[in-house]
Amino acid sequence: MIKITLPDGAVKEVSNGSSPMDVAKSISEGLARNVISAKFNDSIVEVTTPLTTDGSLTLYTWNNTEGKTAFWHSSAHVLAQAIEELYPNAKLTIGPAIEKGFYYDVDFGERSISEKDFPTIEKKALEIARGKHDFKMKAVSKDDALKFYTDRNNPYKVELIENLEDGTITFCDHSTFTDLCRGGHIPNTGIIKAFKVLSAAGAYWRGDEKNKQLTRVYGISFPKQKELTEYLELLEEAKKRDHRKLGRELELFTFSQKVGQGLPLWLPNGAALRERLEQFLKKAQKKAGYEMVVSPHIGQKELYVTSGHYAKYGEDSFQPIHTPKDDEEFLLKPMNCPHHCEIYNSFHFSYKDLPKRYAEFGTVYRYEQSGELHGLTRVRGFTQDDAHIFCTPEQLNDEFKNVIDLSLYVLTSLGFDDFTAQVSVRDLDNPEKYIGEPENWEKAENAIINAAKEKGLDFVIESGEAAFYGPKLDFMVKDALGRSWQLGTIQVDYNLPERFNLTYKGSDNELHRPIMIHRAPFGSMERFVAILLEHTGGNFPLWLIPNQAMVLPVSEKHEKYAEKVLNSLENNEIRALIDNRNETVGKKIREAEMKKVPFMLIMGEQEESSNTISVRRHGGEDLGSISVEAFSDLVATEINSTLKSF
Amino acid sequence: MIKITLPDGAVKEVSNGSSPMDVAKSISEGLARNVISAKFNDSIVEVTTPLTTDGSLTLYTWNNTEGKTAFWHSSAHVLAQAIEELYPNAKLTIGPAIEKGFYYDVDFGERSISEKDFPTIEKKALEIARGKHDFKMKAVSKDDALKFYTDRNNPYKVELIENLEDGTITFCDHSTFTDLCRGGHIPNTGIIKAFKVLSAAGAYWRGDEKNKQLTRVYGISFPKQKELTEYLELLEEAKKRDHRKLGRELELFTFSQKVGQGLPLWLPNGAALRERLEQFLKKAQKKAGYEMVVSPHIGQKELYVTSGHYAKYGEDSFQPIHTPKDDEEFLLKPMNCPHHCEIYNSFHFSYKDLPKRYAEFGTVYRYEQSGELHGLTRVRGFTQDDAHIFCTPEQLNDEFKNVIDLSLYVLTSLGFDDFTAQVSVRDLDNPEKYIGEPENWEKAENAIINAAKEKGLDFVIESGEAAFYGPKLDFMVKDALGRSWQLGTIQVDYNLPERFNLTYKGSDNELHRPIMIHRAPFGSMERFVAILLEHTGGNFPLWLIPNQAMVLPVSEKHEKYAEKVLNSLENNEIRALIDNRNETVGKKIREAEMKKVPFMLIMGEQEESSNTISVRRHGGEDLGSISVEAFSDLVATEINSTLKSF
Repeated sequence: MIKITLPDGAVKEVSNGSSPMDVAKSISEGLARNVISAKFNDSIVEVTTPLTTDGSLTLYTWNNTEGKTAFWHSSAHVLAQAIEELYPNAKLTIGPAIEKGFYYDVDFGERSISEKDFPTIEKKALEIARGKHDFKMKAVSKDDALKFYTDRNNPYKVELIENLEDGTITFCDHSTFTDLCRGGHIPNTGIIKAFKVLSAAGAYWRGDEKNKQLTRVYGISFPKQKELTEYLELLEEAKKRDHRKLGRELELFTFSQKVGQGLPLWLPNGAALRERLEQFLKKAQKKAGYEMVVSPHIGQKELYVTSGHYAKYGEDSFQPIHTPKDDEEFLLKPMNCPHHCEIYNSFHFSYKDLPKRYAEFGTVYRYEQSGELHGLTRVRGFTQDDAHIFCTPEQLNDEFKNVIDLSLYVLTSLGFDDFTAQVSVRDLDNPEKYIGEPENWEKAENAIINAAKEKGLDFVIESGEAAFYGPKLDFMVKDALGRSWQLGTIQVDYNLPERFNLTYKGSDNELHRPIMIHRAPFGSMERFVAILLEHTGGNFPLWLIPNQAMVLPVSEKHEKYAEKVLNSLENNEIRALIDNRNETVGKKIREAEMKKVPFMLIMGEQEESSNTISVRRHGGEDLGSISVEAFSDLVATEINSTLKSF
Repeated sequence: MIKITLPDGAVKEVSNGSSPMDVAKSISEGLARNVISAKFNDSIVEVTTPLTTDGSLTLYTWNNTEGKTAFWHSSAHVLAQAIEELYPNAKLTIGPAIEKGFYYDVDFGERSISEKDFPTIEKKALEIARGKHDFKMKAVSKDDALKFYTDRNNPYKVELIENLEDGTITFCDHSTFTDLCRGGHIPNTGIIKAFKVLSAAGAYWRGDEKNKQLTRVYGISFPKQKELTEYLELLEEAKKRDHRKLGRELELFTFSQKVGQGLPLWLPNGAALRERLEQFLKKAQKKAGYEMVVSPHIGQKELYVTSGHYAKYGEDSFQPIHTPKDDEEFLLKPMNCPHHCEIYNSFHFSYKDLPKRYAEFGTVYRYEQSGELHGLTRVRGFTQDDAHIFCTPEQLNDEFKNVIDLSLYVLTSLGFDDFTAQVSVRDLDNPEKYIGEPENWEKAENAIINAAKEKGLDFVIESGEAAFYGPKLDFMVKDALGRSWQLGTIQVDYNLPERFNLTYKGSDNELHRPIMIHRAPFGSMERFVAILLEHTGGNFPLWLIPNQAMVLPVSEKHEKYAEKVLNSLENNEIRALIDNRNETVGKKIREAEMKKVPFMLIMGEQEESSNTISVRRHGGEDLGSISVEAFSDLVATEINSTLKSF
């Protein structure tokens, strides 16, 4: 008998050689039906692998990330078999599971596949899946492995095997198909009930553009047809909400080849939106006791040598800027903290002056490879809603709570209501990895955990996930499509105060080291606007959107009345524009709809004579003819329901 | 007889060989008494030079810039003689007139002079001046000139003469002193009635740090003692108002060695001031139909090759930024216009869409030699309140008038009431120097001149002062100390629309080239804040200053009442802070005075019981105990007197 410890601490005695599936069965038939993957003593194993020692066992179902990974890894095998059967000359290379689905890189030879081939592949894959073939791992010698693929004339697998050590090589069989594989499968192909080939794109062998270009076939699979349908709907919706597409349609931002890739140009609509976001945060920050500062976008190399950024990132970053005489070297600033440390250092603070909270909408520049760039979410220049709090150890708890309050205020005001938090603390087994006194770390970690508890956050603690210079808290925010985004990191820092020799005079008249907190509720204006666009589909919260209403006179005759209405709206602090182009009202409404203006205010003979406006909501709802005052009340009520005062 | 044409067009016949002074005498004795310098046919001549051909003559007095230049140039000779007599071993090098006064660079040998030597030099100089010595020019051969200075063991003058051509060399004698000199003197030393040595500083021979360091002796002189006294008072006041000194005292900005020279860090007080200035201009710009945009601080080198900036400034600027793979090259942006052209180009505009007015508070970086840097007026990174207007030729006149309106609004709102304008137009004799169609130039120049006339500006037209790409208008603004600053240039540009191939579709359905206007009423936030600091001595206009009042409870007992007052002030839109430190009211008042807070609101027993505040104005004026409402009215009245709505 061996002793198997389960995640809840329970210990099961089972006979030596039992598999994870046997353990599952011994717990409940229901569990056994759902188990599709397992981990034994920190290694992913097959659910059929015989266990021969005592150890810890975790069983995974489709609801675990690990379960999905096994599911999609196994589905990649099925895809490969389908391709091999349909295209006998195709050479398989590698095919991993990814965050959503899986892919297989294939050398199709002369002629690659295209979208019209997808249904055939899907049909074949489902046929294989329905065969309920077991996945069976087997060890092979290096010679046998090489011979297997040399016989099949597959230089890619041969190259992979050549880099493996004899004795570590395994194949996986299912049905008539065999693949080089490290393992981690679902019990059998029958669990795969829905299968979709999503796309095919070029990809270089081993990611190197000097190598041959292969075809990367992306697929996804599910244990239920319904889940695939939902996923495809979501995908369709995500495409509609792609911030790059909406950014173009709403004329928010653009890129220019001459200016350079990854360097967004904010068009008037986008700049107005951004300005409103900034003013919103500035107002809240002012109430929270922050002070704005302004610092340059470059700094001497020495500044980043002091901060440690140069040693760490220098080579992979934008390279130093030289002067005509070559007697000075500057760097584009990758972050604002060194500048803020120098601002702190220009004063001589006592403990009575702290905390100091310096905020700046600071534009930073970080080099990203061109292939990594993506719309506004991965750029080379972006503006952080940055702030650094310098405080005493005694103040850390309160300051952390205040930052959580501010972050929550920002998230909820912008319609993000579904989030959890993650607190990253030290790995206590490796204390040498961390800078700063252990007792300060202890205090800081407790401060964060207590703050998270007091604020009622739904949070997990992750050991060993802290940066070497301090613990942190991240918010994981779910958007309207159920995708998770990391937003609003709050980072404690013991390192920079040390490196910049920051001090304050304590009540004991001695110099002490302050603690620094980095925080950015939006993260960056660019990424946040992208996420907000995809979350809202471009229908921004009413309080935020720069143009809340479009005033539409039915004809030239009513322009004067329209101007009067516009004026009343302005007096009621409603931001509106007038569209008095010589176009039909129908066309004007369609365009206002496309621009996602929340309200269209139409006025003709009837409205003018009754001193009302005919209100149409974005999407088509008719709110009838009402007075400007009634409309203003409606707007105010809607705004007050999302935007509380801080 | 020869014919002498005077500036008013009058022609005087005088005998051949008459001097400018003779001509002056022939006009009036009064004029002759005041004439100190003259220009004949575009060349500065001595007032004693015999005129031997027909030509145009301009006579200058102390009230002309040219007159002052001759006065100070002559004074430099007197300074040199005084030094030579007092320090026989001193070697004279060069000594020109400058904007205010003159200097002489001297090699004093072993031991240089210091402040305590100034009175002796001044006394000697005045002694020489009182001798009423005539300045007499004479031609010398190169050999004689070289011998003269070789005998006197002066290698500097020898070096200067070696670079001159024989036949062009002149000396000037007065009293016992002789100097290498091109001419342009006052009639005699007796006109110099007041003489002051201002300072002595190190300066390298020929400005090259590889050469020997000389002593630059700065001086100033006047025709009346009273003028010197006034000037020294002004200098004293300017020192008190030095923006670097005030910037430190008011904690507005700082510099850090690690960040780099010429790269200001705006401290909380400065950033708040800047934010208010920006919001003020944004509001006015919005009313004037501008749209904000945001662009990155770098651009690909190609962008500046297209704009022509790279060819023109590339070598003397911050050098290109390379990437890790060295496959791209970027430049720090020295101006925002190329980015704004690319934003324009991302749309397809028709004439109905124009004008487009893109505004951005855009931070730009320009390399300046470290010796050229000065506080906030000469920096390496600064934020322009930039905007570019793209319009049709027909719209130019109106757009120009609108920009003048905006510029005047900005200047007068900030307390600059004394200004003139300068319109810079083509040199019609050299049409090949200018890009763009002559008829467009003609139209643009007329548009500017008419706009200036219609707006009632006091302006001069300067031929040949236009940039090669378009005419412009500058405001010359006098500050409280009478110093002139160039502010708010409005520049028409035909060049960039051409280089960026900007177009709009005209009513004829053809593509046309828009005209561009560059404008920046502040110029840059840095330089403007510096000028505003020196103009106001740090006493900013009430509407602008971030902290308008300091609430001062007499003791802890009245803190609650103070909070209540602060609250009422906020409701009345008055920006105030509370000082409830445990210090005496006297100390709090002194500190508020130093921080130049416009109002101090003091409250004790009496004020609390009568529900009033005791108001003290910055500078000490006691406004008595009044209600918060009465105080708010007072503030509103004062603000409305400077800040009109745009």
